[in-house]
Amino acid sequence: MPATLMNERDLEFMLYELFDSDALTSRTRYQDHDRQTFNEVVNTAKTIAEKYFLPIRQKLDTHQPTFDGKKVHIIPELKTAINAVNESGIGSATADYELGGMQLPPIIASAAASFLTVAGGVGMGYNMLTTANANLLQAHGSPELINTWVKPMREGRFMGTMAMTEPGSGSALGDLITKAVKSDDGTYRITGNKIYISGGDHDLSDNIVHLVLARIQGAPKGVKGISLFVVPKFLLNEDGSVGEDNEVALAGLFHKMGGRAQTSTALSFGEKNGSIGYLVGEEHCGLKYMFHMMNEARIMVGTSGAVLAVAGYQYSVDYAKNRPQGRLPSCKDPQSPMVNIIEHADVKRMLLAQKSYAEGAMALVLYGTQLSDDERTADTSEQREYAHTLLDFLTPIIKTWPSEYGPKANSYAIQVMGGHGYINEHPVEMFYRDNRLNSIHEGTTGIQSLDLMTRKVPMNRMQGYKATLHEIVKTIEQAKQYDSLNEYTQKLSEAVETLKVTTEVVLNGMATNNIDLALANSVKYLELFGHVIIAWLWLKQGIVATKALSTKVHQTDEYFYKGKLQALQYFYRFELPQIAVWSSILISSDSTSYDMQADWF
Amino acid sequence: MPATLMNERDLEFMLYELFDSDALTSRTRYQDHDRQTFNEVVNTAKTIAEKYFLPIRQKLDTHQPTFDGKKVHIIPELKTAINAVNESGIGSATADYELGGMQLPPIIASAAASFLTVAGGVGMGYNMLTTANANLLQAHGSPELINTWVKPMREGRFMGTMAMTEPGSGSALGDLITKAVKSDDGTYRITGNKIYISGGDHDLSDNIVHLVLARIQGAPKGVKGISLFVVPKFLLNEDGSVGEDNEVALAGLFHKMGGRAQTSTALSFGEKNGSIGYLVGEEHCGLKYMFHMMNEARIMVGTSGAVLAVAGYQYSVDYAKNRPQGRLPSCKDPQSPMVNIIEHADVKRMLLAQKSYAEGAMALVLYGTQLSDDERTADTSEQREYAHTLLDFLTPIIKTWPSEYGPKANSYAIQVMGGHGYINEHPVEMFYRDNRLNSIHEGTTGIQSLDLMTRKVPMNRMQGYKATLHEIVKTIEQAKQYDSLNEYTQKLSEAVETLKVTTEVVLNGMATNNIDLALANSVKYLELFGHVIIAWLWLKQGIVATKALSTKVHQTDEYFYKGKLQALQYFYRFELPQIAVWSSILISSDSTSYDMQADWF
Repeated sequence: MPATLMNERDLEFMLYELFDSDALTSRTRYQDHDRQTFNEVVNTAKTIAEKYFLPIRQKLDTHQPTFDGKKVHIIPELKTAINAVNESGIGSATADYELGGMQLPPIIASAAASFLTVAGGVGMGYNMLTTANANLLQAHGSPELINTWVKPMREGRFMGTMAMTEPGSGSALGDLITKAVKSDDGTYRITGNKIYISGGDHDLSDNIVHLVLARIQGAPKGVKGISLFVVPKFLLNEDGSVGEDNEVALAGLFHKMGGRAQTSTALSFGEKNGSIGYLVGEEHCGLKYMFHMMNEARIMVGTSGAVLAVAGYQYSVDYAKNRPQGRLPSCKDPQSPMVNIIEHADVKRMLLAQKSYAEGAMALVLYGTQLSDDERTADTSEQREYAHTLLDFLTPIIKTWPSEYGPKANSYAIQVMGGHGYINEHPVEMFYRDNRLNSIHEGTTGIQSLDLMTRKVPMNRMQGYKATLHEIVKTIEQAKQYDSLNEYTQKLSEAVETLKVTTEVVLNGMATNNIDLALANSVKYLELFGHVIIAWLWLKQGIVATKALSTKVHQTDEYFYKGKLQALQYFYRFELPQIAVWSSILISSDSTSYDMQADWF
Repeated sequence: MPATLMNERDLEFMLYELFDSDALTSRTRYQDHDRQTFNEVVNTAKTIAEKYFLPIRQKLDTHQPTFDGKKVHIIPELKTAINAVNESGIGSATADYELGGMQLPPIIASAAASFLTVAGGVGMGYNMLTTANANLLQAHGSPELINTWVKPMREGRFMGTMAMTEPGSGSALGDLITKAVKSDDGTYRITGNKIYISGGDHDLSDNIVHLVLARIQGAPKGVKGISLFVVPKFLLNEDGSVGEDNEVALAGLFHKMGGRAQTSTALSFGEKNGSIGYLVGEEHCGLKYMFHMMNEARIMVGTSGAVLAVAGYQYSVDYAKNRPQGRLPSCKDPQSPMVNIIEHADVKRMLLAQKSYAEGAMALVLYGTQLSDDERTADTSEQREYAHTLLDFLTPIIKTWPSEYGPKANSYAIQVMGGHGYINEHPVEMFYRDNRLNSIHEGTTGIQSLDLMTRKVPMNRMQGYKATLHEIVKTIEQAKQYDSLNEYTQKLSEAVETLKVTTEVVLNGMATNNIDLALANSVKYLELFGHVIIAWLWLKQGIVATKALSTKVHQTDEYFYKGKLQALQYFYRFELPQIAVWSSILISSDSTSYDMQADWF
């Protein structure tokens, strides 16, 4: 029996024991749902994942999309699989009924999608980007734009992209130069080049809806002069059918280390007369709108990091339980039977490390997903605002921590399996490659760390920072009821103190010192904060497990909860203590990197 | 101008400033050499690397060897490149004159080979394994075996492998079951299956000389009943020409994440009448001989980890110096020109991390290589014995530290380059994939850590351990002459104390407690020891740089030495403090992994 894609018992734990997803059914938006409909959606996703994606997972990886100079070719099985997703409705699970959606809570949709992510590699990336694109347009586009473009995307007939990066400016969006010129009919003519556009060309849908950042002639310099446009691959006829080419040319495909099923493209817009673009919202406000999509995309990236970590963990646990090799050090008889490698302490260490990363990261991304729901559908405006404050603050951590620690988990999955982990008979090497992109796209770790330090911490008189610490302290207070959690409440309290002291130094540095120096170790601050957050979410899980174990539970559940407590212990003893190193670098305003000169390299 | 393959200034520093390679020319074996001949060999290797390997590096990666059911096909350019290496004599640079070698010191040969490793991916792996194989036979084989097999390998006509791993036993060599039955003519008939045999089949040489571990009928169980055989792919005719097939069948090729130019094979021996094998040395002593090769191979693996780290570092430094993007945080004018990304502190941090890993690892592997020379060619028997003691002790660290930190360096190279690092237009993603194998083959990190704790530390009344600490303390004493190195002498002294205390606890645990528990965190001990060793080698480099800077030096040298000191500082502030975490896990005999149960996962 092959390894299961996801740990279903753990997903159930996350949804219903850690985060109270049952309670969502009391919200008006979700009143038609109950745990049964939630489970049905998850099971449908699992079935599609196993039936359509898993059989082609390796083929998607080994048969990269190709470009023959005219068209992009992707193995046709992917279209069949994506069609199955679209037909099931899972592709737009969270959308309103009137837009063809199921009005499912995002946390349930995310759990369902995790099966597709594991089984399909990034094949699902096309759908996810399309959903994010449609959500942006729905929030900021005119009724006409929504009517024209969102509906076919929700139905899976069109797909969407976000086109931001340019060859000359990379992450520095303020320097982008793609040009927009207004025509008499109110549309714009777009000319310029974009790179690394995921899903920028393919034959999976009838049309591709690009959301393009560009600068209208005469706009202010920098980030304040950027506008957002819908630029479709094909224009539409009056009856809404797909019409003529809109001068969006594929300039090339990038060949990536992983995530190979999803094309990464260089696009050239408007080489002849300019591609026709439709302005989204107001002029010069493009970046604000893009951040709507971007924030959603950042949670998705974190989720990908987490889910791939779970996938590698599941696979390597299964392998370790079934692979006999060697004997324990205490066994001196070479004739005694071999043990399964899961009995070796070092293998258990590598599996615990994975568990602590993977399930810590899953808890984080599902928490973030629930916040993104709460900020829209929670009962009171105070609750909605509070959720918004928390999510806004935590987004750089939700994006980054799983992206950084997911690949570390996957590296352990390879190591557990030894040579078998390094060959493509098993998927863990693919998870490792796929996952490596997550700390790069949608804002690198360095950019997230600057966002955290310069915007998210000081923002609104540190409201987000304070709310987050408030939540952590609440959990510590709850945990104090359980003696067996003493070690962790104490360690987390100390960690929060470390975080506070460090934050104070960092903020002083930004206010009074050389700002370049003050920000030089921003990534260490993000790492420190990330570890505190994950430790917090592990303590939350520990409370649930401890409570459950104090009652009479079935043996398999007993094992499950004991595993949770052991992973909690692992994180607090092997991982959390590292924050002392990072904190001391920050508190001393270490200038090692700042002082280094280009010529000295 | 593309990035240089290796940092030549740094190689010069390592060879002639850090390790006194000039002094080697006073040894009888090397009396024909001087710095000029050393440089010629290095330059020849560089020329071959640039001319033959670099142009096909990407093609070797994207065109994996294929098996058509009968023959293995590798792109023919590799054979041309390997021929160029063989013709240059670099392939057997260290061998005796009478065996067609150049009698070069291994440290010089290693520096030369590094260019080929960077440019050729693992294309050079065929040669390296062949050299290791030939060296083993020369040390332990009969004159007849040496005459028959070593000479054609030195000349590049034959290539060699080591065939140890079996499907059922993996790293647990004691459980291997490949069978050897003695024939009347004194040869043996070999039957069995081996997997992950690097270079196990190909069309690059006239013959392949497999060194095969097998069990002679009636041999003792476990590791004490293993013998070593030469099993050629083709038998030889009486005149030495290549004759008939020896029943060594290719059962399949593995498709690896990296290192793709080198075939990884499943081989089946003797499916009809048994492959003919020639015993090496005595019966049942095979593992001892294999460890001759294995120890050499372990230094090679460490060297690969280090060289690939240097390669990624060189490449990403060059990129960062030439890629304009963004502005410093202190710059608020969006119209000011962009800076090259090397000006961003976080990019400098990632480059410094790479430098500290890459040049720390290079110093370690070159030190190990020099010890492997000293144990054979140092002037006195005391010196030779002392070198042997040190090398024997340090081998698990020389193998592991570069294997673990090399890929981390490569990950930073990717991150520095962002999206550009993730695509195959640039080689850093390949370095990352290639390097990931190094902590697996020739003994995983887990196995090295058990070797260190259970054999290397206690061995000969801790002679190797004490000698190593003696060397470290000597360096600390030297460094005390320089006030500017105070911070480091103090921190390294503290680290040595931590190491001593930890070692004592660990040894007590092994003597008095549950051995399975005592070894449960062995990898943390290896990490701790590794970091102390690298910190020591950085202090050694710091002494040289400080001395040099106290004299009048050319500006480029001034920059070079300042870079060294900055990387030293980075390692001591960002890396070395982590040993506190590992030490505390070991000192508390942490049982988190040991206590975890298979059912709880």
